[in-house]
Amino acid sequence: MRKIYLKEIEKYDGKEVLVEGWIRNKRSSGKIQFLILRDGTDEIQAVAFLPNIGEEKFKLCEQLTMESSVKISGTVRPDKRAPSGYELDITDIEILQIADEFPIQKKEHGVTFLLDNRHLWLRSRRQNSLLKIRHTVYYAICEYLNQNGFYRFDSPILTPNACEGTTTLFEVPYFDEGSAFLSQSGQLYLETGIMSLGKVYDFGPTFRAEKSKTRKHLTEFWMMDAEMAFVEHKKNMKIQEDLIRFVIRYVLEKNMNELEILERDIAQLKKADAPFKIITYKEMIEILQAKGSKIKYGDDMGAQEEEMLTDDSDVPFFVEKWPKEIKAFYMKLDRENPDLSLCADLIAPEKFGEIIGGSEREDDYDVLKSRMAEENMTIKEYQWYLDLRKYGSVPHSGFGVGLERLIGWMSGVKHIREAIPFPRMINRLTP
Amino acid sequence: MRKIYLKEIEKYDGKEVLVEGWIRNKRSSGKIQFLILRDGTDEIQAVAFLPNIGEEKFKLCEQLTMESSVKISGTVRPDKRAPSGYELDITDIEILQIADEFPIQKKEHGVTFLLDNRHLWLRSRRQNSLLKIRHTVYYAICEYLNQNGFYRFDSPILTPNACEGTTTLFEVPYFDEGSAFLSQSGQLYLETGIMSLGKVYDFGPTFRAEKSKTRKHLTEFWMMDAEMAFVEHKKNMKIQEDLIRFVIRYVLEKNMNELEILERDIAQLKKADAPFKIITYKEMIEILQAKGSKIKYGDDMGAQEEEMLTDDSDVPFFVEKWPKEIKAFYMKLDRENPDLSLCADLIAPEKFGEIIGGSEREDDYDVLKSRMAEENMTIKEYQWYLDLRKYGSVPHSGFGVGLERLIGWMSGVKHIREAIPFPRMINRLTP
Repeated sequence: MRKIYLKEIEKYDGKEVLVEGWIRNKRSSGKIQFLILRDGTDEIQAVAFLPNIGEEKFKLCEQLTMESSVKISGTVRPDKRAPSGYELDITDIEILQIADEFPIQKKEHGVTFLLDNRHLWLRSRRQNSLLKIRHTVYYAICEYLNQNGFYRFDSPILTPNACEGTTTLFEVPYFDEGSAFLSQSGQLYLETGIMSLGKVYDFGPTFRAEKSKTRKHLTEFWMMDAEMAFVEHKKNMKIQEDLIRFVIRYVLEKNMNELEILERDIAQLKKADAPFKIITYKEMIEILQAKGSKIKYGDDMGAQEEEMLTDDSDVPFFVEKWPKEIKAFYMKLDRENPDLSLCADLIAPEKFGEIIGGSEREDDYDVLKSRMAEENMTIKEYQWYLDLRKYGSVPHSGFGVGLERLIGWMSGVKHIREAIPFPRMINRLTP
Repeated sequence: MRKIYLKEIEKYDGKEVLVEGWIRNKRSSGKIQFLILRDGTDEIQAVAFLPNIGEEKFKLCEQLTMESSVKISGTVRPDKRAPSGYELDITDIEILQIADEFPIQKKEHGVTFLLDNRHLWLRSRRQNSLLKIRHTVYYAICEYLNQNGFYRFDSPILTPNACEGTTTLFEVPYFDEGSAFLSQSGQLYLETGIMSLGKVYDFGPTFRAEKSKTRKHLTEFWMMDAEMAFVEHKKNMKIQEDLIRFVIRYVLEKNMNELEILERDIAQLKKADAPFKIITYKEMIEILQAKGSKIKYGDDMGAQEEEMLTDDSDVPFFVEKWPKEIKAFYMKLDRENPDLSLCADLIAPEKFGEIIGGSEREDDYDVLKSRMAEENMTIKEYQWYLDLRKYGSVPHSGFGVGLERLIGWMSGVKHIREAIPFPRMINRLTP
C-alpha cells in the first residue's frame, strides 16, 4: 500500500493509502470513532467503524491518547464538510506508541509554561502553521534573490569587532586571540563580497545581547542582509519593495491554509501588495507631531511612533534620509545635504513596525574615515573595511531584513517569540 | 543604453551595452589596449582602440590599474578565441576610481598574507569560482529538500547544553542564566521539529572549539542537518545518496566554468554519480588491516584511514553499524546486535573523507535513558529530549552534511579554509 502525505490527499481520491502520524484528538459515538490524524503536512479525520475493522482493532483505537503515534491504512473518501475535503475510512491501524498524558491540553496555559514546553508546544496547530509560514518566507526571500542574480555569501558569526555599537554584544573567549563577538550583522563582510561577485546576500542567525523584554526582541534572530555593487539609494528601496511584495504573494500562494488557522486578516495582507510610500525623516517628524507625539527633530523613532505612523497606511512605507547622528557610520552622506544619511527604514503596516533597514554605503575613503573618527572607532581594526574604498570603490547599497519581524507581519502574530522554533530572550535559554 | 551582466553576454551579440565592473588586468600595443573587465558574474576582454574612442578616453585607459572600477560601454562582438566567445569593443569609458596598487599580485603569496587579506583575496579568479560553487551547493541542497517535502526548521545557536561532548564548546556568558554554548549541531532540536512537521532541516553555522590545525577543520563551519519521522536506517542512507548525487549533477550543470578555472577533474566527479557502496564497520576494519593499517576493532577512523579506504573507489561509500562506544548516545542500537549503532558515515572518494554522519535515532525511552546514564549525562537537562520518546515516539532518522567538506570535494580544493568566505581557525579570527 502506498504511504502518502496528507497534503497530497486529493491525488488519492477513492484509493487505499497508508498514513503515518499522530492523533491530534478523538471522539466516539457507539460503533464509530473519529480520530483526528496529523502527519506534519496536514490533518484528516480518520473514521474507525466497528463493522469495518473488527473488535480487536476497534479496541486498540479506544486506547489512543492525544499525541499517540500510529500507522493508519484507509480509503480516501470525499467529504464536503472536511477542511481538506476528504476523510479516511480506516481499514487497518497499528499503534506505535500510546502517549503519556500530553502536558499541553486545550485549556489556557501561561506563556512561561508554554515556553518551558516549547519542544511540545511546536506541535499545536497554531505553532505548526507559524513554522510553515517561516519556511515559506525564508524560501521566498532566497528565491527572489536567486532569480535576481544574487550569490549567497555567508558572513562569519565569530567576529573580532562590532558592527553596531559595543554595549549589546555577546562575548566569546577565543583561544589565544582574546575575545570574539557574535555577529550583529554581516553587512561589512558582504561589502567585501560584492567586490568579487557583484550582488550577494547572507541569511543566518545574528545576536544582540539586548536587555529589552519587548514583543519585538530576541537575543538570537535571523537576518537576511543583501548588498549590491552599482546600486544607489533610490534603486535600493525599489529592490526592497520588489522583494517584500514577492514574499507577500508567495505566502498568499502557499499558506492560505495556515493563514486561516492563524485567523490572519488576509484582505489586509493583499492590500500591502501595492506601491510602497516614501517619506523623509523630516516629513515623518512633522506627521508625528501633528498626531500629538512629542518627538523632536533629531530623535530616533520608538516602537510607539512606528505604530502611530502606520495607522493611516495599508502599505508599508520607507522613511528616508535620517540625520547622520542617529544612523550608522557606514551610511553614505547625502551630497546635497551632508547632515543626512542616504538611508531608509521600511515600516510595515498594522503596527508591525520596522522590517528592513538599508542604505547606500559611504564609498569615499576620506569621508568614511572621518566618519569613523567622529564615532571614535579604532581605524586599525576596520582597515580591511576601508580598503574596499581604496581598491576599486564603487557606489553600492544594501539592506537587512529581520526574518522574525517579517514572519510576524505575514502571519499576524504580535510577539515574535512565536516566529522562531526556539526563541532566546534575556531570561530564556531553554529548552 | 542597457546595463547588462557579463554572464548573459550572448543575448547581446552585436548590441551596444553598458558593463560596470573592475579591471582584472590589461596589456597594450600601440593604438590598442586590452582590458580584462570583470563584473562579478564573469569576465570579458574589452578592447580600447584609439581611432574609436579618441585620445582623451584612450589616455584614461592608460591610467587604469589592477582593480580600478569602471563603467564601460561597448559593442558585443563574437570572438572564437575568447573564453566566453565574445569581446567588447569599447565605445566609451568612465572611471569610477583608480585603485591603489593592489596588494595581491600574480606572484606567489604565503597563506598567512592571503588570509590577512581575505577581503581582497576573494576577488581572485579562483576564490570567485569557489564562492560560486558554494552558492550552488547550498542552493542545490535546499532545492533537493524542498522538492522532497522537508520544512526548514532553524535550530538555536545559543544552547544550554552540549550535543557532542563538552571539551570543544565555545562558552558565552548569558545574562543571569549562566553560560550558553554555541551549537555544535541542531540535531536534537530537529527531532522536536519532526513531531510537528514530519521532515525538517536546518542549515546554519555550527561551532567547534577544536584545537586541530588540519586542512579539514574550521572552528565555525556550516552544516545542514536533516531529520525525518518514520524513516529507518536503510532508507536514511538512500536519501543521503539521492541528495549527494543531486548536488553533483547540479554543480556539473551550473558550474562547469568554475570547475575548469579550478582545474577540477570533472570525469572523476561524474563517476561519483553512481550507486554508492555500503560496508559495515567490521568490514572496514578488515579492509584497512589488509592494507597494512594498525587499526583495531573498536578504534575510531582517522583522516589517514579515510584516505586509505577511498583509494579503490570512484564512488562514495557508507560505513555502517559502528560499535556504540565510539558513537553518540542518541543513535539507535541495532536490535539484532545491541553493541552496534544503526549509523553510517558517508566517505567521499579522492581522499576527501567524511562528508555526512547519520543514524537512526533511539526511539525507546528506557533504552535511551540508560544510554544517557552510561555516558554520565545529566538526565534533567535532556528531559525535553527524552520527552519526545514519551509523547508519540516514532522511528526516525537523520544526518548532517558538512557544507565546506562537500564544497571541498566538489571543487577539488584540499583545504576547506577556501570553501568559506571568512574562515575561522584556532589562530585566525580576522578580518
